[in-house]
Amino acid sequence: MIKFTDIKIGDDVTFYALIENMQKRFTPNKSGYYGATLSDGDSSIDARIWDCSLIETKDVTAGNVYRFTAHVNEYAGKAQYVIKNIELVEDGEIDTSKFFKAAPLSKDELNKGIKSYLKKITNPILYKLAVNLIAKVAPEYFEYPAAMSMHHNYFNGLAYHIYSMLELASKFVQTYPGMNSDLLYAGVLLHDIGKTKELTGPKTPLYTEQGNLLGHIVIGLQMLANEAAAQNVENTEEYMALSHLIAAHHGELEYGSPKEPVIMEAFALHFIDLADSKMAPISAEVLKTKKGTSSAPIASLGRKSIYVPNIE
Amino acid sequence: MIKFTDIKIGDDVTFYALIENMQKRFTPNKSGYYGATLSDGDSSIDARIWDCSLIETKDVTAGNVYRFTAHVNEYAGKAQYVIKNIELVEDGEIDTSKFFKAAPLSKDELNKGIKSYLKKITNPILYKLAVNLIAKVAPEYFEYPAAMSMHHNYFNGLAYHIYSMLELASKFVQTYPGMNSDLLYAGVLLHDIGKTKELTGPKTPLYTEQGNLLGHIVIGLQMLANEAAAQNVENTEEYMALSHLIAAHHGELEYGSPKEPVIMEAFALHFIDLADSKMAPISAEVLKTKKGTSSAPIASLGRKSIYVPNIE
Amino acid sequence: MIKFTDIKIGDDVTFYALIENMQKRFTPNKSGYYGATLSDGDSSIDARIWDCSLIETKDVTAGNVYRFTAHVNEYAGKAQYVIKNIELVEDGEIDTSKFFKAAPLSKDELNKGIKSYLKKITNPILYKLAVNLIAKVAPEYFEYPAAMSMHHNYFNGLAYHIYSMLELASKFVQTYPGMNSDLLYAGVLLHDIGKTKELTGPKTPLYTEQGNLLGHIVIGLQMLANEAAAQNVENTEEYMALSHLIAAHHGELEYGSPKEPVIMEAFALHFIDLADSKMAPISAEVLKTKKGTSSAPIASLGRKSIYVPNIE
Amino acid sequence: MIKFTDIKIGDDVTFYALIENMQKRFTPNKSGYYGATLSDGDSSIDARIWDCSLIETKDVTAGNVYRFTAHVNEYAGKAQYVIKNIELVEDGEIDTSKFFKAAPLSKDELNKGIKSYLKKITNPILYKLAVNLIAKVAPEYFEYPAAMSMHHNYFNGLAYHIYSMLELASKFVQTYPGMNSDLLYAGVLLHDIGKTKELTGPKTPLYTEQGNLLGHIVIGLQMLANEAAAQNVENTEEYMALSHLIAAHHGELEYGSPKEPVIMEAFALHFIDLADSKMAPISAEVLKTKKGTSSAPIASLGRKSIYVPNIE
Amino acid sequence: MIKFTDIKIGDDVTFYALIENMQKRFTPNKSGYYGATLSDGDSSIDARIWDCSLIETKDVTAGNVYRFTAHVNEYAGKAQYVIKNIELVEDGEIDTSKFFKAAPLSKDELNKGIKSYLKKITNPILYKLAVNLIAKVAPEYFEYPAAMSMHHNYFNGLAYHIYSMLELASKFVQTYPGMNSDLLYAGVLLHDIGKTKELTGPKTPLYTEQGNLLGHIVIGLQMLANEAAAQNVENTEEYMALSHLIAAHHGELEYGSPKEPVIMEAFALHFIDLADSKMAPISAEVLKTKKGTSSAPIASLGRKSIYVPNIE
Amino acid sequence: MIKFTDIKIGDDVTFYALIENMQKRFTPNKSGYYGATLSDGDSSIDARIWDCSLIETKDVTAGNVYRFTAHVNEYAGKAQYVIKNIELVEDGEIDTSKFFKAAPLSKDELNKGIKSYLKKITNPILYKLAVNLIAKVAPEYFEYPAAMSMHHNYFNGLAYHIYSMLELASKFVQTYPGMNSDLLYAGVLLHDIGKTKELTGPKTPLYTEQGNLLGHIVIGLQMLANEAAAQNVENTEEYMALSHLIAAHHGELEYGSPKEPVIMEAFALHFIDLADSKMAPISAEVLKTKKGTSSAPIASLGRKSIYVPNIE
Repeated sequence: MIKFTDIKIGDDVTFYALIENMQKRFTPNKSGYYGATLSDGDSSIDARIWDCSLIETKDVTAGNVYRFTAHVNEYAGKAQYVIKNIELVEDGEIDTSKFFKAAPLSKDELNKGIKSYLKKITNPILYKLAVNLIAKVAPEYFEYPAAMSMHHNYFNGLAYHIYSMLELASKFVQTYPGMNSDLLYAGVLLHDIGKTKELTGPKTPLYTEQGNLLGHIVIGLQMLANEAAAQNVENTEEYMALSHLIAAHHGELEYGSPKEPVIMEAFALHFIDLADSKMAPISAEVLKTKKGTSSAPIASLGRKSIYVPNIE
Repeated sequence: MIKFTDIKIGDDVTFYALIENMQKRFTPNKSGYYGATLSDGDSSIDARIWDCSLIETKDVTAGNVYRFTAHVNEYAGKAQYVIKNIELVEDGEIDTSKFFKAAPLSKDELNKGIKSYLKKITNPILYKLAVNLIAKVAPEYFEYPAAMSMHHNYFNGLAYHIYSMLELASKFVQTYPGMNSDLLYAGVLLHDIGKTKELTGPKTPLYTEQGNLLGHIVIGLQMLANEAAAQNVENTEEYMALSHLIAAHHGELEYGSPKEPVIMEAFALHFIDLADSKMAPISAEVLKTKKGTSSAPIASLGRKSIYVPNIE
Repeated sequence: MIKFTDIKIGDDVTFYALIENMQKRFTPNKSGYYGATLSDGDSSIDARIWDCSLIETKDVTAGNVYRFTAHVNEYAGKAQYVIKNIELVEDGEIDTSKFFKAAPLSKDELNKGIKSYLKKITNPILYKLAVNLIAKVAPEYFEYPAAMSMHHNYFNGLAYHIYSMLELASKFVQTYPGMNSDLLYAGVLLHDIGKTKELTGPKTPLYTEQGNLLGHIVIGLQMLANEAAAQNVENTEEYMALSHLIAAHHGELEYGSPKEPVIMEAFALHFIDLADSKMAPISAEVLKTKKGTSSAPIASLGRKSIYVPNIE
Repeated sequence: MIKFTDIKIGDDVTFYALIENMQKRFTPNKSGYYGATLSDGDSSIDARIWDCSLIETKDVTAGNVYRFTAHVNEYAGKAQYVIKNIELVEDGEIDTSKFFKAAPLSKDELNKGIKSYLKKITNPILYKLAVNLIAKVAPEYFEYPAAMSMHHNYFNGLAYHIYSMLELASKFVQTYPGMNSDLLYAGVLLHDIGKTKELTGPKTPLYTEQGNLLGHIVIGLQMLANEAAAQNVENTEEYMALSHLIAAHHGELEYGSPKEPVIMEAFALHFIDLADSKMAPISAEVLKTKKGTSSAPIASLGRKSIYVPNIE
Repeated sequence: MIKFTDIKIGDDVTFYALIENMQKRFTPNKSGYYGATLSDGDSSIDARIWDCSLIETKDVTAGNVYRFTAHVNEYAGKAQYVIKNIELVEDGEIDTSKFFKAAPLSKDELNKGIKSYLKKITNPILYKLAVNLIAKVAPEYFEYPAAMSMHHNYFNGLAYHIYSMLELASKFVQTYPGMNSDLLYAGVLLHDIGKTKELTGPKTPLYTEQGNLLGHIVIGLQMLANEAAAQNVENTEEYMALSHLIAAHHGELEYGSPKEPVIMEAFALHFIDLADSKMAPISAEVLKTKKGTSSAPIASLGRKSIYVPNIE
Repeated sequence: MIKFTDIKIGDDVTFYALIENMQKRFTPNKSGYYGATLSDGDSSIDARIWDCSLIETKDVTAGNVYRFTAHVNEYAGKAQYVIKNIELVEDGEIDTSKFFKAAPLSKDELNKGIKSYLKKITNPILYKLAVNLIAKVAPEYFEYPAAMSMHHNYFNGLAYHIYSMLELASKFVQTYPGMNSDLLYAGVLLHDIGKTKELTGPKTPLYTEQGNLLGHIVIGLQMLANEAAAQNVENTEEYMALSHLIAAHHGELEYGSPKEPVIMEAFALHFIDLADSKMAPISAEVLKTKKGTSSAPIASLGRKSIYVPNIE
């Protein structure tokens, strides 16, 4: 499949690309056009679509893959893509999954891994709350990213984040006596459940209005409150403790938790979440970096780069 | 009625007092006793009850008024009250309300004032959410303090805080065009609704376990979530906006709001809450302070004193 | 009158515009030219004046309205205005007030409103300090903005800010017993008096050198010190308290107050100033924003946008 | 002269002491008494004066030296001084200066040293402002401490602080070209002039009400404003720059400067003030500390101790 | 063995106790005595030794166990222990280990566990640096606490801290591809090596002077620098990276790391250290706390208590 | 010699310039080119070298001066230099020192000045540590800048910084009794010794990998540790105190010191370093600025400008 790096100034080309984002703009003389960022799965380009009807008569939207026809001009020393046509991709025409970044594990592997931990929960109240809540938003739970840009910002990212955290959690349970593993696993499984409504979709999402106004901690607490009321367990210690774990998982008020941890399992959840949200993007970047050099800037580290020592 | 300032070392006395707080302690040789702080409505003393059966056989608890018989020893240069007997107060025996600090307005005045604002809400969804939630916890709503120690920490304090805020809110509505008064009034009325479950009672309360783990913002959001589900309005803009007002009313993450204000009415609610939580205790203290002198330290100002200028 | 949105690339046009700011620059081969931002009252454009004599022989300065003749080139896909001629506007030629943003209330309305509060001050020392100081800088007081960019940054903005604050102050006086309304009103009236010397003019001002080095709090305190000395009241409680209100009105050291509030009226002044400095620009922006959408970024909120809920 | 360390429990003694501070208190049975801290110049004790007429009929006040007669009881394992009589000290009876800590240099030495720098100022405006302002408050300027407790908190402390700073300033002038030495010296000489009205006296002072409400930076700016007006130099660059140096000498907003330094001499003044306010109390404490051990806690270092290395 | 809770006021008793800390003090009449805190392994008391020769002629020092003879007075309502005699404990007289808190694992178990990880290091430079440095301070490494009071403040605490961290580290290595396990294990093994010189001993230690002036990060870096020079590896990537791990393990400048992590293994080390330093004391406290109640305050959490939910 | 300000669009020119920095980049069609910033000693321009062999076949590197042949195009209204040829400069062809900023004092003057202070150290341990360490890195010590961009970022900058600090230090020794001048001078001489390995060279340096991972404080401590071991003084008070001065010279943890000052000389070193790092760049900028105007932005002041008062 043709890649952007194969295309030269002056070419007339047809290629497949994902519309990462797109906005209508206006020239000084008030005629409209669309500016878009297109991705071929490896790299991105900016493009202009002067003929708005290409977008507006075909329901072309950001987050999907299309077939483009374009001419490549030179503008200010750089290539400028002028889109001539946009066409829908028919079923089976190409494998569109290659246009989206995804977790190292597949949706099925993550589903199986996460379910194996769910089954370890023997407390019936915690089990039923976790099972039912996940079931209600299963498609989003297993397909959404964990964030727009900071960490696990790719297809399946949320489930991959949760699964890695469950793995660390099992080691914490072994190492620190006194931990209630049911509560910790339920907390890991549900701590980011609100993200299924905070984000608009599994691929290149934005924040929903609900996400902007309430955030995933509050949305998750609301979902749990309604589930607990439906199951008649709103006066149980389990519901109160699980609510605390969700509320406190950012660890400090200034990171958006309305209460700081005061339960052992809430501390464990916070440390595991913190570690995974940093280690996962570092790991991904280190794997792409040559020993003895520095990585690309990493968003979740405030755009710091990581140095990979030249050690066997 | 006899006051502590009337009692001298060496006296045998009978007096009425409120038990502000009380704890069982043990001497080095392991015999138990109770230490208590007693208030006559104006000032407080520390007392020791060596005979635990006085407490334990009569269900004597902190937060209530009793009739005490005591002998006053001198100990380390100060008066020490040794309690000889504690008796329940019969109905009508005395007016116990004088033992509790209370808001400047009575419960009836506050009820009437608050209801007059409730009636101004014309949006049916906001009106029904506010009316029903207040009705469900009406006794607590109109009797609880607004806090243990920081501000409005007295009987009726919560309702008085809300009523003063409604008054300021009406001026904000006049001054700043674009405000939805229904949303602002509903937000003021419900922003602290979680305090009815965060605190243990109307008089000299402690935090409930739920209060410790979740705090009044989360509890209020849970109450609203369940009420909205019961009324089938959980997908309305009104519910989302009202949830945002409750979540954001502390104004900044570091003060415990999981989201900062992004709606005009949420900003107004925050500024009004901030101003009232400081101005009300300042006002109370200034009224007790002579012109040209400084007040007692004020808890909600980090124990700073206020100077009252000697100006007519 | 012709607006920038009516002008197309290729046009030769004559239009009226305000020079918002203007700077002399030099090309690589050292020939000078002027770059300027022009406003038609609704929107702004960038323009280049290659012929410096157009500026330098006619005393053309930023902050005033002129009649321009220009040709509109295309440059890098955008319209570029090349100014051919600049002419002074004769008296009565057009109504230049439309080129400047201004407060929702007129200068006369504000004058009347502010004077009505001034008359409520019965303490003769406070009254005379306020009356005389305002009289000395009356033109600036009733025409200057309250800031360059943060809030009330428009003609009459300072007076509008003060008038709105007086309105809120009257409600605070009603709600919180113990307040000396004379002191609070005098404090509101004079708290920003130093801005009349901190800024260079009523329209599109910069900071004066005095403003850069001292700021409006110190300048205001100096003005008050000299006025108090002239009136022989420099040893009165009124002068000391009023100086404190000016010094402390930013509320915290880190916001530039050399002392934090320790007088009831100083707290009230601070909360009212804080609330108005945020609510006024929010109100202005909300009025321009469609329900169910987010506003433009708001400078005084750190460029956060406000969401306007879609609620009747 | 008898010292507290010479006095034993059970003694009846007569001694001279400074009253460092004193407060009226009340016993539970409402009889008044005075609690006081007395200093013999080397160490301090707490004392109780049960007979209030000893204080009230003789105008006995904190900050002065008296002759005391006392009996020393044992109370809770410690010596308790019960004062029997307090008598005024006649002129020449003893040398009371030994009861007050003072600067290492005498008032005359400091006067001479400071005047020598004053004479170096050749700019007539700066010279006249400095000379006149110092002359107006000369007794306080040469006798007051520089602070209640943080640094230079002793007789002559303010003048000693200023003189040490002038010495450092002369080295800064040599080392950094571009400095206006007149402006820097005038700034050092006047930066703390407001302390002459912020504190109540030369010995064991408290804050004046003016000090509490305005602080020495604002008071100093007011003094300079009135002096500049009296000399008709209020529109000079010298007055503006000197005002900036006073306003900015704490270096950062959060330390109470309403403006941060933006003039070279203001930076120099800030660094010199910062260094001297820490180095002077460290020096005093190091001189009292044995090599290889740690000093007593130092107030101006947040009660940190200094280690004195055992190095020749 | 007799415990403090068995002893009553008025008793003459003989008991074994650890001197936790001890200081010489002086009465007002200048006679010396010793104040000491004694522990029976379960609880602590304060005692006074009026006869200084009991201490000074027998080389009695804090951190050791002695046999005490005492009389118990009542003083201010509490038991006061007056020590009559102190005698050295002969070898085998009692098992003194019960007087010291210790890690849940024994010294041998920890030695074996730690060595098993040391053997996994295959990089010869990292292996030899770790083996030699640990060998040089082996007694301290396996007996010292990890801190005076914050976490793992007991016999073997340092080794227990390191072993728990190695366990978590092995899970991090599995979960995050790209990690160099040799570097991470070497970093865990050596990150606190400086504590062997920062503290004075294995039991109830204080800070050494070196500890006060340099801290364990700098001391550890110095030890590693000298070891690397001795092995001629000071120019290797391994030495540089390992130095970075030690320098950066506190994670942020404000927690005392002179550099923040920029290597994947340094991030992992920091997160593991952070988690273990909090989870270990929480675990210990939770095991002592009844379900449905709150724990004692925990030093490493800023004296916050942990709530243990009443969940099966 | 030809300067950039003499060159016009359209010219074909030959000029000498320093390559300040240079990076290989790629066009959209993947052909490589170099972008570079060139300095003529007074001002800088951006240039493009399309023919990569000009760079790659001649070992052309940033930090050196070359002879360039270029054509100057106009691009987007600005001059664009297209480099046609780059040639090495032969010895003696020109004086390349004019292309590099340097300290106001020459290398010889600084060497002499610094050595004069070194000779004042009479303590033999401190003297030998300082002499030997400086000798080992003498070329770097007397030629390196003190930083990449913040202060003293020019040839000789490090030595000039140290010499100015020694001058201030001598005044601190005079002013504050109790100071050990040997320790303070040794501390000033060695505090930045690690910069000789943190930076890559004397002219337009970058950070070394060691610099990125460890920073100059840690590198300096390692150098001192190895020197002390070589001299067998690693257990002396002198070595411990000097290590403390290096470790603590940034004054606060958050500025990268792993320990804060607890020795008098460490406080002095910190204040002197702080003052010089700000005053030196301010002085340099003030000398270039006209009275009554503001300077260019100053990097070490967070890009604040300095105002130079118009005072004689």
